Amino acid sequence: MDSKKCSLRARFTVPALLALMAIPSLAFAAEPEGRYSSVDTIWVLIGAFLVFFMQPGFAMVETGLTRAKNAGNIVMKNLMDFALGSIFFWIVGFGLMFGEDINGIIGTPDFFVSAYQVAEDAGYPAMAYLIFQTVFCATSATIVSGAMAERTKFSSYCLYSIAISLLIYPISGHWAWGGGWLSELGFHDFAGSTVVHMVGGIAALVGAKYLGARLGKYNSDGTVNAIPGHSLTLAALGVFILWFGWFGFNGASTVCATGDEALESMSSIFVTTNLAAAVATTTVMCLTWIRYGHPDVSMTLNGALAGLVAITAGCDAVSPAGAAIIGLIAGIVVVYAVEFIDQKLKIDDPVGAVSVHGVCGALGTILTGLFAVKDGLLYTGEAHYFLIQVLGVVAVAAYVFIAMNIIFALIKATVGLRVSREEEIAGLDSEEHGLSSAYADFMPYPEHIAGVPDAEIIADSPVLPAAVAAPAEAAPAAGEHPIYGVTIITAEDRFGNLKVALEKIGITGMTVSKVMGYGLQKGHKEMYRGAEVASRLVPKVRVDIVISKLTPRLLIDTAKKVLYTGKYGDGKIFVNRLDNAVKVRTGEEGYDALQDEPAK
Amino acid sequence: MDSKKCSLRARFTVPALLALMAIPSLAFAAEPEGRYSSVDTIWVLIGAFLVFFMQPGFAMVETGLTRAKNAGNIVMKNLMDFALGSIFFWIVGFGLMFGEDINGIIGTPDFFVSAYQVAEDAGYPAMAYLIFQTVFCATSATIVSGAMAERTKFSSYCLYSIAISLLIYPISGHWAWGGGWLSELGFHDFAGSTVVHMVGGIAALVGAKYLGARLGKYNSDGTVNAIPGHSLTLAALGVFILWFGWFGFNGASTVCATGDEALESMSSIFVTTNLAAAVATTTVMCLTWIRYGHPDVSMTLNGALAGLVAITAGCDAVSPAGAAIIGLIAGIVVVYAVEFIDQKLKIDDPVGAVSVHGVCGALGTILTGLFAVKDGLLYTGEAHYFLIQVLGVVAVAAYVFIAMNIIFALIKATVGLRVSREEEIAGLDSEEHGLSSAYADFMPYPEHIAGVPDAEIIADSPVLPAAVAAPAEAAPAAGEHPIYGVTIITAEDRFGNLKVALEKIGITGMTVSKVMGYGLQKGHKEMYRGAEVASRLVPKVRVDIVISKLTPRLLIDTAKKVLYTGKYGDGKIFVNRLDNAVKVRTGEEGYDALQDEPAK
Amino acid sequence: MDSKKCSLRARFTVPALLALMAIPSLAFAAEPEGRYSSVDTIWVLIGAFLVFFMQPGFAMVETGLTRAKNAGNIVMKNLMDFALGSIFFWIVGFGLMFGEDINGIIGTPDFFVSAYQVAEDAGYPAMAYLIFQTVFCATSATIVSGAMAERTKFSSYCLYSIAISLLIYPISGHWAWGGGWLSELGFHDFAGSTVVHMVGGIAALVGAKYLGARLGKYNSDGTVNAIPGHSLTLAALGVFILWFGWFGFNGASTVCATGDEALESMSSIFVTTNLAAAVATTTVMCLTWIRYGHPDVSMTLNGALAGLVAITAGCDAVSPAGAAIIGLIAGIVVVYAVEFIDQKLKIDDPVGAVSVHGVCGALGTILTGLFAVKDGLLYTGEAHYFLIQVLGVVAVAAYVFIAMNIIFALIKATVGLRVSREEEIAGLDSEEHGLSSAYADFMPYPEHIAGVPDAEIIADSPVLPAAVAAPAEAAPAAGEHPIYGVTIITAEDRFGNLKVALEKIGITGMTVSKVMGYGLQKGHKEMYRGAEVASRLVPKVRVDIVISKLTPRLLIDTAKKVLYTGKYGDGKIFVNRLDNAVKVRTGEEGYDALQDEPAK
Repeated sequence: MDSKKCSLRARFTVPALLALMAIPSLAFAAEPEGRYSSVDTIWVLIGAFLVFFMQPGFAMVETGLTRAKNAGNIVMKNLMDFALGSIFFWIVGFGLMFGEDINGIIGTPDFFVSAYQVAEDAGYPAMAYLIFQTVFCATSATIVSGAMAERTKFSSYCLYSIAISLLIYPISGHWAWGGGWLSELGFHDFAGSTVVHMVGGIAALVGAKYLGARLGKYNSDGTVNAIPGHSLTLAALGVFILWFGWFGFNGASTVCATGDEALESMSSIFVTTNLAAAVATTTVMCLTWIRYGHPDVSMTLNGALAGLVAITAGCDAVSPAGAAIIGLIAGIVVVYAVEFIDQKLKIDDPVGAVSVHGVCGALGTILTGLFAVKDGLLYTGEAHYFLIQVLGVVAVAAYVFIAMNIIFALIKATVGLRVSREEEIAGLDSEEHGLSSAYADFMPYPEHIAGVPDAEIIADSPVLPAAVAAPAEAAPAAGEHPIYGVTIITAEDRFGNLKVALEKIGITGMTVSKVMGYGLQKGHKEMYRGAEVASRLVPKVRVDIVISKLTPRLLIDTAKKVLYTGKYGDGKIFVNRLDNAVKVRTGEEGYDALQDEPAK
Repeated sequence: MDSKKCSLRARFTVPALLALMAIPSLAFAAEPEGRYSSVDTIWVLIGAFLVFFMQPGFAMVETGLTRAKNAGNIVMKNLMDFALGSIFFWIVGFGLMFGEDINGIIGTPDFFVSAYQVAEDAGYPAMAYLIFQTVFCATSATIVSGAMAERTKFSSYCLYSIAISLLIYPISGHWAWGGGWLSELGFHDFAGSTVVHMVGGIAALVGAKYLGARLGKYNSDGTVNAIPGHSLTLAALGVFILWFGWFGFNGASTVCATGDEALESMSSIFVTTNLAAAVATTTVMCLTWIRYGHPDVSMTLNGALAGLVAITAGCDAVSPAGAAIIGLIAGIVVVYAVEFIDQKLKIDDPVGAVSVHGVCGALGTILTGLFAVKDGLLYTGEAHYFLIQVLGVVAVAAYVFIAMNIIFALIKATVGLRVSREEEIAGLDSEEHGLSSAYADFMPYPEHIAGVPDAEIIADSPVLPAAVAAPAEAAPAAGEHPIYGVTIITAEDRFGNLKVALEKIGITGMTVSKVMGYGLQKGHKEMYRGAEVASRLVPKVRVDIVISKLTPRLLIDTAKKVLYTGKYGDGKIFVNRLDNAVKVRTGEEGYDALQDEPAK
Repeated sequence: MDSKKCSLRARFTVPALLALMAIPSLAFAAEPEGRYSSVDTIWVLIGAFLVFFMQPGFAMVETGLTRAKNAGNIVMKNLMDFALGSIFFWIVGFGLMFGEDINGIIGTPDFFVSAYQVAEDAGYPAMAYLIFQTVFCATSATIVSGAMAERTKFSSYCLYSIAISLLIYPISGHWAWGGGWLSELGFHDFAGSTVVHMVGGIAALVGAKYLGARLGKYNSDGTVNAIPGHSLTLAALGVFILWFGWFGFNGASTVCATGDEALESMSSIFVTTNLAAAVATTTVMCLTWIRYGHPDVSMTLNGALAGLVAITAGCDAVSPAGAAIIGLIAGIVVVYAVEFIDQKLKIDDPVGAVSVHGVCGALGTILTGLFAVKDGLLYTGEAHYFLIQVLGVVAVAAYVFIAMNIIFALIKATVGLRVSREEEIAGLDSEEHGLSSAYADFMPYPEHIAGVPDAEIIADSPVLPAAVAAPAEAAPAAGEHPIYGVTIITAEDRFGNLKVALEKIGITGMTVSKVMGYGLQKGHKEMYRGAEVASRLVPKVRVDIVISKLTPRLLIDTAKKVLYTGKYGDGKIFVNRLDNAVKVRTGEEGYDALQDEPAK
C-alpha cells in the first residue's frame, strides 16, 4: 500500500540510458509518455477488480448466514454499500484520506478527486489509485451490514454507509496510509487489518450494540438461541470469493510490480495470505470438533476469514511459517471471540463480523509487531515496533468506537435505527422492499405459477346465493360405501417401500408432502455456532390416501408391515371417515370417484 | 477496442535504439521475437477471462429473476449461447467482422480464423484478439435469453443463437469495429454499448415480441401481473459478477497497456465505469423508493446494469463527472423503460433485458456524443460528432431490428418458436430437459431421499384381495375414548409459544408444515418491478395434533391463550373426530397409540 | 508448466546491452535487482488466483449435483481439501514434487519449501511457483470429493485429502513435471490432464469403489436409480467458474509471458481451451438429445468439463481445429463413460468425476499424442511421441490406482470410510456437522422464525390436569350449523381461477400448500444422467377451506366449474364434517368463527 517502496523500475532504464547518450529526441519518440509503468498499473487494476469482487463475497456470506425473509434486504445493503461508497469516497472521502496532510490528522479535501497527483515514483496514474482505494473503502463499509442484519432500517443503513465512506474510514485511513501521524510513527498495516477490517469490525460492534439483538436471539433466562441461516452453500461460496479477492487485497497492495523486491514481495504475499487462511480454517475445524463434538461448518467458514483478516497487516512482512502461526492464533481466537460476543456480551452479530474483522483485524496488526521478520519483537527483541502496532490499533479502535457511537446515536435520534417488531417478524424483504420473498417461487404458494385467472370461466361460476342452503341439505351423500381418509406420518426413508406397497394393494391416488414431525426423538439436540438449537422437530413425510373400496384395515396392515422396524420413527397412521369425494374430470362422486383408475 | 490507438510502445524502444546503433544482431539475440508486447497481451487476455465470466453473471441474473421450474433451461441456454457462439464466431463470424473490409459493409470471410493478422502496431497475437472478441460476441448473444425466458423452445433458441453469432452481430460489429462505414465516419463505441449491448437488446425486443407474453403476464382487462423470480440472491450475485466482468469489458478494450496514454485510459475507464454504475444504482434505488414506496431490489439490480451498459460506449472519452451524469440518466431511463415496455408495449421481458441493454445501450452511445471531453457536443458546441453517434445507433438498431425479424420469422415458420401451453405451465425443465426440477431435492417430494424400495419387505405385504372387505366391516374401532384431530393455523411467529405450551399440557406429537394462509390481511399489496402482485396469501404455520386423553377443549383453551393478541392473524383452530390412530412401532391402536409417550 | 521454455526475455535486453557498453553501474542503478520478470511473475500469480477460484467451482458443482441434506458437508470437504492441501503441500509435497530429482522417481524432501530455488531462467520468484503449484495440487485433491459425496465419513475424507497432497500427487507430479523419468522421456502434459485431473479421477474411482454406492442407488434387480441433486443452478455456476479458472489453469501454465513464443502460446491456449470446451459442450447436448430424447442439462455441464480436462494436456500443442476435435471426442466419451461407470461397473459417482477427470484426463493426454502439431502421430506419422503419451497415462494410472487402494484400505481398516446407514439417511450435515440443514430456513419448520417462546404467556397456560376430562364431555359442540372441511387437490395452474371463484362465492379463508400428487399421470418418466427416475408424483396444489354458511355442494359445484377441463389432472375434492372451528382473535366458535369476515 506504500507507494514509496517502488522507487526503481525498468521504465527508467531506457530513458536514463538515452539521456546519458544524449539522444533525448529518440527517447521521446520511442517512449513519449514514460510517466507510468505498465506492469504497476496492470497490477493495481488487477487488485481493483479482485477487491471489488469481495463485495459479492460479503453479500453471499451475509445472506447465507441469515434468514430467507431478509435475503433481498441483505444483498440490497451490500449493493448500496458499494454504490454509495463509490460515490461519496470519490466526492469527499478520498481527499480526506490521501489529500495533503494537515497536522497528521486529516488530508486536505479534494472534492471529486480533481487535484490528486500520485507520488513522483508511483508507477500508476491517479485514477488507478482512486479505484483501488475505492474498493478498499467499500470493503470496510460492507463489513457492518452482516452484524446489523435482519433488523436495521434500510434508510438508516444507507445513512451509516454514507458516513463511513465519507468521513469515518478516510480519517483513520489517513493516519495509517495517507501520510498521517501513524504512518509517520512507522505503524505497519500493509493491506488493512486495522485500516479496513478493524474499522469495519468496530463499526459493526457499535451498530449491533445500538440495535439490540434480533427477536428470539436471547431468552429471558439468559440462554442463547441459534438462528440458522438459509443457505450454507451460498455462505461457503462467499467465503471462497472473499479468499479469491484477498489475493488482490493483499497481493496488489504492493501497488508495484517492478523490481525484484516488489516481485518477491507479491509472490510471498500470495503464499503468506493463503497459508494463514489455510491454517486458520484447519484450526477452527479442529477446535470446533473438540468443543462442539463435530466440525462446525459455519464457524469454519468464519475461520478462513479470520486467518485472511489477521494476515492482512503483515502479509508482506512475515515468513510463511510466521503466517501459519498467525493463522493458528486467529483460528483459536475467532472461535472464542464469537462465543464471547454472542454469549457473554450478548451482542447479536448474525455473521460473526465483529469477531472476524474487528477482533482478528486488531489481532493481526499486533501479531505483525511480533512476527515481522525485519522489525518484529520476536526477531529483534526490541519492543518499539510492537508497541507502535499496539498504539495504532488502540488509537484507531478508540477513534472509530467514539465516532460510530456519535453516528449511530444521531441516526437513532433522527430517523431511527431499527424496524418495528412486526416488520422484523415479517421480514425486511416484505416490509422494507415490498417483496413477498427473495425466493417467491419457492414459497409454498402457487398463485404466480397459476397464471392469470380466466375471467370467462370465473364469470360463469355461481355467485353467492341470496339465501344460502339450509343446514339440513348441506350434508352430501357419500353413498353406501364409506370413504376413509388415511394419513400416514413416517420417516422420509420409509416412503419408497410404502409407496410401492400401497400401489400393490390398489390405491388410486395419494398426496405427499414434507412436514416436520415430533415425537419420541425428544433430545435430538444440535449446536449452531456454539449455541444450542432448541429443536426436536425432525423431517417427516406425510402421505394422505383416500379409499372406499379398500378397507382402512388393509391399509393399516400394509403400512405397518412396510414401515415397521421397531425403532422410534416408524410413524403413525390416522383414519378419518369422510363425507364425500369428487373427481372433477368425470364429475363422479363418492365410491365412484375413487374407483375408475385401474389398480397398478 | 480500436487497436490503432496503441501505436507506440516500449518494446520498440530497444530495437529502435539498437537499430540506430547498428547492432541488429544483438537486438535479435536480446529480444528475438519482439513482435508482441507482454503487457498488451496480458491485458487483452485478462479482458478475455473477465468478459467470459460475465456469462455466469447473465445466467444468475436470468435464472434468479425467473421461476424455478425453468431454472435448468435458463442456465442451459446461457451455456449453449457461449458454446455455440464460440464455435460459430470462430468458424464464420470473426471473419465477417474483422476480415478485410468489403465496401464498408462486411469483412471478407476467413473461415476458422486461418488468415487473420493483427494490425502491425498491435501488441498482441491474433489468437488473443480472437478470444477477446469471442467473449464479446457471446455477451451479445446471451442478452437475449433473459427476454425470451420461460416460453421459448430450446431448439429454436439454439438456432437464434447460432444466427446472431454467425451473422447478425459480426455485420454491425464490422461497421463499428471492423473498419466498416461507421468506423470510417468516426462513430465512437468504445467497448460496445451499441455493438454488443444494443444489438443484444434489439434482438431481445424482437424475440420477446414474436414470442408473446408468458401465460398469466397480462390480464384480459389490460392490467399486468408481476411474476416474481425464484432467487433474488442469485440475481444479485449475477449483477455483482457482471459488474466485476465489466472492468474487463471496458478496461481491457484499450487492447493496449503500453504508454502513458493507454495506462491513463485504462485507469480512467475503471473509474468511469464504476462511477456510472454506482450512480445509476443509487438513482434507481431513490426513484423506485419515490415511485413504488420502497427501494425496489430487482429494479435496483437492473439499475446497476443500466449504468454499466450506458457508460460502455464512452467510458474512455468522458470524465468521471460525465460518467456520473450518464449513470444518473441511465438510472432514470431504465425505470421508465421497464415500465413502458412492460405496461404500455405489453412486451413481456422477464429480466428487463430490452430496457437495460437495448435502451441504455442506445442511450449511452448517444450520450457519449454529448459528454465526450474531446468531441462531445457539450464541450465543443459542435453537433457533428453527436449526430454521428445518433446515426450509428439508428443504423445499427434498424439493421438488427430488420435482420432479427427475418431470423425469428424463419424460425417461427419452420421449427416454431414457443412451447405449448401445457409445456409452459409444467415448466421448461420438465418438458424440454426431462428434469423433475432443477431443485429436485427441494421439491415437496421425498422419493429420491427414500432410497430404493426393499423388495423383500414389499413382497411380503398383502396383495389386493380378490374380494375387498365389505363396507360393513370397514369401520375401525376407535375404542371408548374418542380421538380428535386438531388443526391450528397461525402466524409463524406464534409457533414458539404454541409449541412450548402444548408440550406443557402433555401432547404426545405434532406435525408442522409451512402453508400459505388467507384471511383478513386482505389488502396486503406488493409491487414487483412496477406491477402489482395480486396476493393476499401470507405465510402461516399449520400444526396438526391428534389427541385422545386430552380434551379438545383443553387444547383450544391453551392455544387461544398463547396465540391471542387481538389482532388479525391470531389464527384458527379446527377440530375433527377421527376414527382411529395407529402407532406403527408398537402396533397399538386408538387411545393407546397416543398414550405411551411420557408427557414432557 | 515447463519453465525451460521461457529462456529469453526482455529483461535481459537492457542489461545485456549495457554490459556490452561497459556501463555496468548504470545497469544496476537502472534495474538493480533484475532477477525476475514483472510480466512473468504477474502471469504466474494471475494463474494462481484463477486456479484457486476453481475451488468454489468444484464446490458448487458437487453440492449442486447432490442432495440438500449433504450440502454443508460437501462445501466443508471442498474447503478442507484446499486448506489441508495448502498446508501439507507446503510442508512436504512441494519438495517431493519439485525438489532435486532422485533417480527420476521422487524429489528431495524440502520441508516448508525452505531450500527451493527456481531455475536460472525462470522469470518469477520461488514463492510464486509455490502458490501456483499449491492450487494445482488442491485441484487434484478436490476432484475426489464429488465421487465420494453423500456417504463418506468426514474424518476419513480429511485423511485421504492429506495423503493425496502430501504424497500421492507429488510423486506422479514429479515424474511428469518435476524432472522425473516421464519428463525425461518427453511426456507432454502441459497443464495436467494426467498429472492433475487423471490423478484425481483415478483416486475418485478407487474411493467410490471402496465406499460402495449410496443407499438407494442400485436396485436388487440391477436397475439404477437416478438421485437428482438439489440445485442445477449452483452446479451450472460451478461449471462456469471452472471454465473461467481454466483460463488460468491452462493459460498461465506457460509460467512465462515474455517473448513472442510465450505470448503466442498463451493466446493460442486461451483459444484451444475455450474451443475444446465449447465443442464438447455442444457435442454432449446433441448426443443426449439423441440418446435420451432431450438435451440433458447436468450431462451437458459435465460435457463442458470433459472438454476442458481433455484439452489441458495439449492446449499448447494443438491447433484450434485439433482442439475442436479433442472436444468432440471428449464430449462423446464422457457420456458413455458416465453411463458405463454408473450402469455397468455400478460404481456410484454422484457428480461424474471419474468420467470427467479420470477418463477424459487420460483421453486428452493420449489425444495430444495424435494431435500435437509438432510431434503428434497424425502430423508426423511417427508413433514414438504418441506411445510415450500412452505410457505416461498407463504408468500414472497404475501408480495412483495401487497407491490409492493402499490408502483407502488403510483408512477403512482404521477409522472406517463410510458413515452408518442411519447417518446416510439422515444426511451428513445433520450427523457429521450437527446442522439441522444447510438450508435450515427453507425447512418446512418455522421454529427459528418464531423467536423465543414468551415465558410469561406460557407460564399462564393450563397445565395438565391430574385427571383429564372424561370422554363424555370431550365432544365440542359445533352448533346447529354443520361445519365442513373441504380439501381440493388440483394442478398448480388451476389455482388462480379457483381462488377468484371461491372468493366470489364468499369463502372466508383458505390454506394453500404445495404437495406432490399422484394419479393417472402414471407413466410420466424422466431420465437423469442416463438413468430413469421412477417418479409418478407430480406437483399439485392443495387448498383447504372450512365452511359453515356455504354448503359443500356449492363449493363442489364452483370448484368443478373452474377446474374442469376434461383432462387428467383436473383434481379431486374431499369433504369432511368437522366438530368445531375456533377463531382465536374473537374467541368465536362453530358457525360464528367462520362468519365475521365480509364476503369479498
